[in-house]
Amino acid sequence: MTEHPKQPVLPGGVTLDHLAAGIVDGDRTSLARGITLVESTRSDHRRLAAELLQILLPRSGQAVRVGISGVPGVGKSTTIEQFGSNLTAQGHKVAVLAVDPSSSRSGGSILGDKTRMARLSLDENAYVRPSPSGGTLGGVAAKTRETMLLCEAAGFDVVIIETVGTGQSETAVADMVDVFVVLMLPGAGDDLQGIKKGIIERADIIAVNKSDGANERRAREAASDLQAALRILQPVSDGWTTPVLCISGLADIGLDTLWQTISDHRATLRETSGFEARRSAQQVSWMWTMIDDRLRGELRKTPQRRERLRQLEEAVRDGARAPSAAVEDMLQMIGL
Amino acid sequence: MTEHPKQPVLPGGVTLDHLAAGIVDGDRTSLARGITLVESTRSDHRRLAAELLQILLPRSGQAVRVGISGVPGVGKSTTIEQFGSNLTAQGHKVAVLAVDPSSSRSGGSILGDKTRMARLSLDENAYVRPSPSGGTLGGVAAKTRETMLLCEAAGFDVVIIETVGTGQSETAVADMVDVFVVLMLPGAGDDLQGIKKGIIERADIIAVNKSDGANERRAREAASDLQAALRILQPVSDGWTTPVLCISGLADIGLDTLWQTISDHRATLRETSGFEARRSAQQVSWMWTMIDDRLRGELRKTPQRRERLRQLEEAVRDGARAPSAAVEDMLQMIGL
Repeated sequence: MTEHPKQPVLPGGVTLDHLAAGIVDGDRTSLARGITLVESTRSDHRRLAAELLQILLPRSGQAVRVGISGVPGVGKSTTIEQFGSNLTAQGHKVAVLAVDPSSSRSGGSILGDKTRMARLSLDENAYVRPSPSGGTLGGVAAKTRETMLLCEAAGFDVVIIETVGTGQSETAVADMVDVFVVLMLPGAGDDLQGIKKGIIERADIIAVNKSDGANERRAREAASDLQAALRILQPVSDGWTTPVLCISGLADIGLDTLWQTISDHRATLRETSGFEARRSAQQVSWMWTMIDDRLRGELRKTPQRRERLRQLEEAVRDGARAPSAAVEDMLQMIGL
Repeated sequence: MTEHPKQPVLPGGVTLDHLAAGIVDGDRTSLARGITLVESTRSDHRRLAAELLQILLPRSGQAVRVGISGVPGVGKSTTIEQFGSNLTAQGHKVAVLAVDPSSSRSGGSILGDKTRMARLSLDENAYVRPSPSGGTLGGVAAKTRETMLLCEAAGFDVVIIETVGTGQSETAVADMVDVFVVLMLPGAGDDLQGIKKGIIERADIIAVNKSDGANERRAREAASDLQAALRILQPVSDGWTTPVLCISGLADIGLDTLWQTISDHRATLRETSGFEARRSAQQVSWMWTMIDDRLRGELRKTPQRRERLRQLEEAVRDGARAPSAAVEDMLQMIGL
């Protein structure tokens, strides 16, 4: 770490460089403090967080970034707990994060209840962090992304990002990982109920979960049907055909194959230079998402503006105001 | 039309109300003038265009909005020409628009060459308009959307929007229509080469084109394979399973079924109130897209800013600058 000349002092009396050094040393208190800074909505904290991320930039980016999605009940937590534990047993350091924009409303996030990943939470080579709460999906996703960078700087070489199986959070997670895994239930067809349109096409790997005991045959049939359907519907142009695996998070079946498939996907992407291209495109796209979010923030700066915005949005929704006319109204409001 | 008290005078010496009245009367010169206004990038024109759209709002929204996509060579123009001619023969008034963000670069748009739709171009119940040229996809799409509204106000009850079969224009078109039709070639599998990931999942209707003569059997097999694959992979939750039709634009086969299927889709959406919900969501989403576009415009206002923006984007792409740090830099640049 190079020492910066004029270091702002953080709450807690440390400088950014000290905090960064603590994170790189793998100190959990520093990591937690860094994450708190990243999750803060105060504008002075936001600037400090950006500076911290800039200092740590050369140390981040080294992890395998895995997104895991699937409808509620598909067994995401159980699978991640077992999968993560297997990886730490093999010497990996595993961070588990989440994107759940509903966590502020429901009062609890998908990973808020740590007992759901009791073993992994106690594992010294794992770090389980609940979804940041509050704000828009964009805000929640941005904080998770930045937390991922801090975890990488802290030496975690696998970052698993869980997403709730409903709504737009899947897209946000798919946009921040190297490989997007969709868990499904045995019995193709019925269980598609609840899966959002477009999610299956985003999958780099599909895993039919609960493929154990009496379910095994049904799971194999489901996997085979899915694989056949994907062969017909999926463009072959990008050098990777989404494989369909059978796993059981509960019975620890097929999780080694899952890890191997993730490695194969990575190798394939690297061969076609798809890996660097994906990462670069993600970086630029994060930047623009954050800019849009901040610029839109100008429109919401005062209670008066928020109220006017609400009215205009409602008028557009009801068809009373043309979208382009509402846009002119809004921009006039902020003097543009 | 209610008369507005202080009417700005347009180039050409007419007021907005006169222009609007001309469009509603179905006067082609007025429609063309309105479209020119909508396509203008001058900020005073933009305000006038927004006002015009607001005046015409009660007259717009009545058309069946059909998006037609497919890879180059699939026969989009031929199919639209025949399909559109059939519809005008049945008494419909058909507008054909296009979204092709590449049209400014290549010097010609997909609909620029009017000889490609020679018959429809001469049909007095049809209006064929090439893609607006220049600018970002967002800009091109915005202009096409607004042109669609003007065409509706002018009494066209079917608006067909063609999109090039590559890149992101499909998503933009799918987001502005009631029904999104993807044309495919006979021989499932091979012809998926070139189809962008995610497009098939956006399809409300798939039509295997060139299903004529010697191709007919292959087309039927392809359709049957696609239908089976869709049954396995497609969520059934929204009450509509994407049907796969066999058509031939060239031989005028199956185009009546295509129109009937579009009507069925509409009826299904209306039953589940999905129709109004889709339109409302589209309106609001257009509004935000336009706002983002305009707010981002602030960042590009001067050559200095554009240069700084280019440098920052490059630094983020190369991994030299953290996205959040680049965001802070950019917003500081415009004093936020």
